Amino acid sequence: MSGGSNDMPPSRSEIVQQIMAAKVGNGLRWTDVAEALETSKEWAAAACLGQMTMAAEQADAAVELFGLPAEASAVLQVPPSRGSLDQAVPSDPLIYRFYEVVSVYGTTLKELIHEEFGDGIMSAIDFRMNLEREPDPAGDRVRITMSGKFLPYRTY
Amino acid sequence: MSGGSNDMPPSRSEIVQQIMAAKVGNGLRWTDVAEALETSKEWAAAACLGQMTMAAEQADAAVELFGLPAEASAVLQVPPSRGSLDQAVPSDPLIYRFYEVVSVYGTTLKELIHEEFGDGIMSAIDFRMNLEREPDPAGDRVRITMSGKFLPYRTY
Amino acid sequence: MSGGSNDMPPSRSEIVQQIMAAKVGNGLRWTDVAEALETSKEWAAAACLGQMTMAAEQADAAVELFGLPAEASAVLQVPPSRGSLDQAVPSDPLIYRFYEVVSVYGTTLKELIHEEFGDGIMSAIDFRMNLEREPDPAGDRVRITMSGKFLPYRTY
Amino acid sequence: MSGGSNDMPPSRSEIVQQIMAAKVGNGLRWTDVAEALETSKEWAAAACLGQMTMAAEQADAAVELFGLPAEASAVLQVPPSRGSLDQAVPSDPLIYRFYEVVSVYGTTLKELIHEEFGDGIMSAIDFRMNLEREPDPAGDRVRITMSGKFLPYRTY
Amino acid sequence: MSGGSNDMPPSRSEIVQQIMAAKVGNGLRWTDVAEALETSKEWAAAACLGQMTMAAEQADAAVELFGLPAEASAVLQVPPSRGSLDQAVPSDPLIYRFYEVVSVYGTTLKELIHEEFGDGIMSAIDFRMNLEREPDPAGDRVRITMSGKFLPYRTY
Amino acid sequence: MSGGSNDMPPSRSEIVQQIMAAKVGNGLRWTDVAEALETSKEWAAAACLGQMTMAAEQADAAVELFGLPAEASAVLQVPPSRGSLDQAVPSDPLIYRFYEVVSVYGTTLKELIHEEFGDGIMSAIDFRMNLEREPDPAGDRVRITMSGKFLPYRTY
Amino acid sequence: MSGGSNDMPPSRSEIVQQIMAAKVGNGLRWTDVAEALETSKEWAAAACLGQMTMAAEQADAAVELFGLPAEASAVLQVPPSRGSLDQAVPSDPLIYRFYEVVSVYGTTLKELIHEEFGDGIMSAIDFRMNLEREPDPAGDRVRITMSGKFLPYRTY
Amino acid sequence: MSGGSNDMPPSRSEIVQQIMAAKVGNGLRWTDVAEALETSKEWAAAACLGQMTMAAEQADAAVELFGLPAEASAVLQVPPSRGSLDQAVPSDPLIYRFYEVVSVYGTTLKELIHEEFGDGIMSAIDFRMNLEREPDPAGDRVRITMSGKFLPYRTY
Amino acid sequence: MSGGSNDMPPSRSEIVQQIMAAKVGNGLRWTDVAEALETSKEWAAAACLGQMTMAAEQADAAVELFGLPAEASAVLQVPPSRGSLDQAVPSDPLIYRFYEVVSVYGTTLKELIHEEFGDGIMSAIDFRMNLEREPDPAGDRVRITMSGKFLPYRTY
Amino acid sequence: MSGGSNDMPPSRSEIVQQIMAAKVGNGLRWTDVAEALETSKEWAAAACLGQMTMAAEQADAAVELFGLPAEASAVLQVPPSRGSLDQAVPSDPLIYRFYEVVSVYGTTLKELIHEEFGDGIMSAIDFRMNLEREPDPAGDRVRITMSGKFLPYRTY
Repeated sequence: MSGGSNDMPPSRSEIVQQIMAAKVGNGLRWTDVAEALETSKEWAAAACLGQMTMAAEQADAAVELFGLPAEASAVLQVPPSRGSLDQAVPSDPLIYRFYEVVSVYGTTLKELIHEEFGDGIMSAIDFRMNLEREPDPAGDRVRITMSGKFLPYRTY
Repeated sequence: MSGGSNDMPPSRSEIVQQIMAAKVGNGLRWTDVAEALETSKEWAAAACLGQMTMAAEQADAAVELFGLPAEASAVLQVPPSRGSLDQAVPSDPLIYRFYEVVSVYGTTLKELIHEEFGDGIMSAIDFRMNLEREPDPAGDRVRITMSGKFLPYRTY
Repeated sequence: MSGGSNDMPPSRSEIVQQIMAAKVGNGLRWTDVAEALETSKEWAAAACLGQMTMAAEQADAAVELFGLPAEASAVLQVPPSRGSLDQAVPSDPLIYRFYEVVSVYGTTLKELIHEEFGDGIMSAIDFRMNLEREPDPAGDRVRITMSGKFLPYRTY
Repeated sequence: MSGGSNDMPPSRSEIVQQIMAAKVGNGLRWTDVAEALETSKEWAAAACLGQMTMAAEQADAAVELFGLPAEASAVLQVPPSRGSLDQAVPSDPLIYRFYEVVSVYGTTLKELIHEEFGDGIMSAIDFRMNLEREPDPAGDRVRITMSGKFLPYRTY
Repeated sequence: MSGGSNDMPPSRSEIVQQIMAAKVGNGLRWTDVAEALETSKEWAAAACLGQMTMAAEQADAAVELFGLPAEASAVLQVPPSRGSLDQAVPSDPLIYRFYEVVSVYGTTLKELIHEEFGDGIMSAIDFRMNLEREPDPAGDRVRITMSGKFLPYRTY
Repeated sequence: MSGGSNDMPPSRSEIVQQIMAAKVGNGLRWTDVAEALETSKEWAAAACLGQMTMAAEQADAAVELFGLPAEASAVLQVPPSRGSLDQAVPSDPLIYRFYEVVSVYGTTLKELIHEEFGDGIMSAIDFRMNLEREPDPAGDRVRITMSGKFLPYRTY
Repeated sequence: MSGGSNDMPPSRSEIVQQIMAAKVGNGLRWTDVAEALETSKEWAAAACLGQMTMAAEQADAAVELFGLPAEASAVLQVPPSRGSLDQAVPSDPLIYRFYEVVSVYGTTLKELIHEEFGDGIMSAIDFRMNLEREPDPAGDRVRITMSGKFLPYRTY
Repeated sequence: MSGGSNDMPPSRSEIVQQIMAAKVGNGLRWTDVAEALETSKEWAAAACLGQMTMAAEQADAAVELFGLPAEASAVLQVPPSRGSLDQAVPSDPLIYRFYEVVSVYGTTLKELIHEEFGDGIMSAIDFRMNLEREPDPAGDRVRITMSGKFLPYRTY
Repeated sequence: MSGGSNDMPPSRSEIVQQIMAAKVGNGLRWTDVAEALETSKEWAAAACLGQMTMAAEQADAAVELFGLPAEASAVLQVPPSRGSLDQAVPSDPLIYRFYEVVSVYGTTLKELIHEEFGDGIMSAIDFRMNLEREPDPAGDRVRITMSGKFLPYRTY
Repeated sequence: MSGGSNDMPPSRSEIVQQIMAAKVGNGLRWTDVAEALETSKEWAAAACLGQMTMAAEQADAAVELFGLPAEASAVLQVPPSRGSLDQAVPSDPLIYRFYEVVSVYGTTLKELIHEEFGDGIMSAIDFRMNLEREPDPAGDRVRITMSGKFLPYRTY
């Protein structure tokens, strides 16, 4: 098994680390990455963080943009094992605040979606997200717009 | 201790149950409730589900709208012990999808907010939320807009 | 608050208990229930166990079939808070075996679905299930067929 | 202890990683793998993912197909320590949907199996599974058929 | 909903409590119970503790032996939701020792069963157990004999 | 700290891995190992899996039988940190079945031991175990006999 | 099932609550209780808190001392389901300190017992405990002496 | 960053491993270690296992006694991150028995300390422990004496 | 057991509920309560919330102030089972922020205390706390001052 | 991918380890570090422990002070993934005491903040902390002052 581990392509988490290091080292912004991948900054960041599957051209563009080893392209085209939290309840305060929104507003979201659409869910797969700055004299705000297809439960 | 438990005002969770029963029984919609409480449907639902503190007039309006016992008004004006999930990872599929969004997009949200605003968080307290139907020929979509004040970490 | 708890409609879990008791007491089978609700035995059982939302006629039929109090009909038409397990890892051996199938075959299902359909998931909402006896000389078998819509992840 | 770790055969998880890398690198499909192992695509994938024990010829075929070190054959013939989930509640959305099916339909499956077969379980050992595409004008579906021997509890 | 809860049959856990109280009150031994149910003391105890399904005559015999309400008979004939532990790791020292045996000897049992039988498991369904006193001059011992059918994994 | 890690003796888990590799590589059976260690196959397997402390001659015999580095002998004579499960609820199906036996029969074992012996426990330390094949025309069975000293609680 | 719950003897936890209330109400000390039960204050407290099994005379003495209902005597003579913590990690600061001692000194205790006695454990069953005040000019101390029989692991 | 990891001093857990290996290799007993560190065997073992902070002379003595690299001395003088358990509920049977004592006797210790001293705790910091052999014709016993300062809660 | 539960004094959690209801109903402030109990508002609130032990006069004052049943006085003088969180990680956002401070600053507090005082801890028993408003033109602030006795670890 | 891992910048946790080693090795105090970073000792320690983001000059100063590799500067300027606890309930006694304060005083803090400020929270982001020695003849005390902006919940 000589050279065993050398023959192995880099793992996705190694590639994510290399991408983040190259991004910091080269002073790239997510909008730059989005442009190179011809997609939104939200999807681009998610894909570079190992949560989305790149198309072949996107993966090749990422290899070039971040100076990744050539084998990384194939890895980036494989559907990832998703989930970016290291614990059921995230410890990072920024991420925790979103968990808190789910905790405090979970039943509210359930009530309002059922009232408007009937029994079913908002898809987290047929889903897109947009994050922007909302200027405010009392201090700028983060505005996040989520759009997910409503999927109804049906009787069968 | 005669009459002890009878002297006790209803607990918040009992009031929430009574509100939900009255809402179903009287065919009220959250927009009706919002109108009675002179607020948004999102805040109104959260307050009726025990996650927000009502002002005196709102609490009185809720007592009248839902036919609650008079003592309920004082209870609804006390800041609640928040958190509507029964488990760290929610089991209801509708609520789980939001947990999944946090799980899949948590690090993405962190990256994008830090890039746009620097180190800090989106407040879940100075926060508002709006949920609406987004018509789509391929199936209508749930659109949720969240707006939270950016709070920077500062050196001291 | 006189009569308070008497005014409360029965909770869904109380109704589920009453349904199960009436079903045992009257010797009803799930196929009988399915016929009364004009649906499949799988959906009928899930609905009676508090996991699906009944249409008005179904709820009324259930009230009659199981001799439930009249107020139960409205409750059965409200989307439930889903999840029938009492622990993350279920203790009942019959239910555990299905958890074990997910544990042992989880990554296999992921591989095969991605290979056949690309990146995405099998919906658990636009989903139906069928359970039947598969006669076998070496001992009859349980055959379960699940059908869920494939939902692709998309770039945005 | 010179050369200690070099003398160690590769661990099963290292072999699984090598198999997955070779599969991606060589553009192999699970049906190709199944043919080489003279078995179904479901069992072949599960075995390559470290969840099933290969027979000697299958293990040798796998070594050849994926270009594994010769020592891997013996490892693939040892019964594995099964379980492919990294957490009690899986975070990957595709795998989670199956967990959700167990959560929502767990008590339904229990009811229907007991009604049809009496007290007992569906075996997850004397078990086979088949996954196929179900064409549907409203969007193709994933159809999964599970077949497990019914095992009755007996009085003793 | 007048009389609602009065119409409900007793729950299995209430029946278990009644059985245990009657057993203590009447000075019955498990061998007496086994005789009345025409089965072993091991199965009889498990059934009375809510872990096994009684046949009709057994349930009627239990009702008579323990002076249970007549409705209890039907409940005892329904397959129970099994699992007698209140936590994943049991706190009672007697029960914990068995958990410790699984913890310390788990991999040993796996090795020895695979060596003797090949890949598969010992069934916990087609299973019987016997507990007896093993006289020993250094202090009597508890001897437990478990017998479970070997179920092989098979390629498909 | 030159050569630091080279000076370290192998850890117990490294030795366990080497033993298992050598056992597979040399086609040894646990009965062979038991003979070499002059003990039972159950104790021999548990000791080789890192759960029991070997006597000096046994450790030397293990070093020879499995071709371990000389330093391994001292390590095998140190009482191990016991526990072979990687989670509170084991995921491997073979080991889980024993956990299930504890879960389903835990209170039964408590009742029967207390009835026969009074208040106390079955020792898991002054304990021995035997596993053998029980031929059965309906399929051979695994028979496990456990014998543990009864230890009474005493008033003081 | 008329009078059902009235026929039930009090549960052990109800009896524990009654004992504690009577003890506070009557200003009894544990040494008084120990005298009445003819045992140590440590064992007496543990028994009254539901962790030990009383002999018949002790149970009768407890019924008289605390003014318990007559049925309580039989309940106190049944071996309890032991474990007084409500969580794996106890929240009460006094009890937590003992958990902390196990956490900080756990491996130390293991080392010292193995060095002095060889491989084995200190029994928590054949065990007695004594708690007393240790006068100290710098502030009095709690002195706890535990004595448990050493139980050796043996080869078989 | 050439030589990066070589420049790092050894971590405390690496030093603990080296100490344990040297102790086994050189046949040292904890009483020998205690003598070299001029302290008790209990404190010496805890310090060597990474749970206590050594004074400079003790750290130097440990470096000499166990043949540690010179840099280890500074590390041993830094207050450690304490806690020697790898899980909330320890799996090793010897350590578990102490957890069981806390579980079974936790409320008893609380009662007796409050009765003797009033509201407060036994310190686990201003604490010492002694372990010795208690000869007993029925089998020698482990005797552990713990002494912790009583700390009262005070009104303020 | 006639009148059994009526004879029971109110539990501490029932008294806490009654206190909170009376406080809301009578418009009392914590400073009023502190005055009545002749203590600080911080200690008074903690005691009324079931986390501190009242002296006899304080308990009597509380009974009068809140109109509690007379038996409540004795209960309030018993040391409570402390811990006000319902989960290891608190869900209420206000309380969670303090958990977050421990999470983010835990190792910082450890470093600074060890640097200033040497190895040891800040007592949470010999502890007092003060909360006040800190006026600030950019928005008033919550200022919390904690003072706990330093307790050193000592060699023995 | 030759040299792959060498090209990677050091991870934050590696830098934290290097900082701590250099701090011990060079006998630096946190007040020295604070001076070099031109900030408080509390913020400086938190930043060096990987919980705060350094400004460019601070990161450069840290590189020089601790002799870090040049690439470390960029890493120290990236917002960290915060959270310094390795478990939900911290095991180190010093850190645990702060968790205990949250556990015992959590509801008290909630009451007092709501009474003084209304419904809202104390920010853990717009937050500063100060730790100092409080001389006391009965033993010096640790005094910690926390100051966090009050953030009100608002109706919308």
